[in-house]
Amino acid sequence: MPVTDPSEGRCSIARTITAVGERWSLLVLREAAMGTTRFSDFRHRLGIASDVLANRLSSLVELGLLERTAYQEEGSRTRTEYRLTAAGHEFEVVLGALGGWGGEHLPAEADAGIRYRDRLGRPVRVAFVDEDGHSLEPDEVAVSRR
Amino acid sequence: MPVTDPSEGRCSIARTITAVGERWSLLVLREAAMGTTRFSDFRHRLGIASDVLANRLSSLVELGLLERTAYQEEGSRTRTEYRLTAAGHEFEVVLGALGGWGGEHLPAEADAGIRYRDRLGRPVRVAFVDEDGHSLEPDEVAVSRR
Repeated sequence: MPVTDPSEGRCSIARTITAVGERWSLLVLREAAMGTTRFSDFRHRLGIASDVLANRLSSLVELGLLERTAYQEEGSRTRTEYRLTAAGHEFEVVLGALGGWGGEHLPAEADAGIRYRDRLGRPVRVAFVDEDGHSLEPDEVAVSRR
Repeated sequence: MPVTDPSEGRCSIARTITAVGERWSLLVLREAAMGTTRFSDFRHRLGIASDVLANRLSSLVELGLLERTAYQEEGSRTRTEYRLTAAGHEFEVVLGALGGWGGEHLPAEADAGIRYRDRLGRPVRVAFVDEDGHSLEPDEVAVSRR
């Protein structure tokens, strides 16, 4: 048996963890999902060092999760904004899964974080769904290597 | 505006990342989902150092994602097994979300990793679902602070 799993680089879970799984990257994506767009707002809301934030934003832009745009209000200097791309919005299901699991299994006295809702304002959760778009319970899902 | 987000400890996404988000913890959970139970098998399949693996396994047991049991086959010495708890099985939706996103947005030449299927053997995916258990597209989900 090999010491290193030869399929490691070919596992999409491992690839995603390598690319986006670092704590600050995930928290930057959470902030972006909540509407934060400016460098200074990310920095203050997360309490993250400027050099680390600059690094994570660049990496998320390079990976295609955020897009960087310049905009200028009349009479102001040019500002840079960071917004989720379509791929970034699709990543929200990962954040929703992390939050859903933690909300159930790591309870806190008060939960002040992010909340996902449908268009009617009703809470939504993250689940496995079958080809017809119907949710499945964990014991209805089987796992295998490809 | 505070330098550190005061809601940080109260965000279930951040709590889950802190508890389980480290790369090796996630890969140990992936291996457990695929049926690996023994220390030596985790070590060889992941190519992880023994001390790091021991640390991650203990942490996942403490958090209630894995349970540690002793078993003995006749004539053999006692072995320790690690198996997913119910909470551990519920965490699989996070792995499914990571894998689904990476499979779509971080393509590799060959994808040899984990695959989730329903009881009929059809592929399943991870998505937001509403209260009635119907899947929602990313643009049908809105996000807010609580």
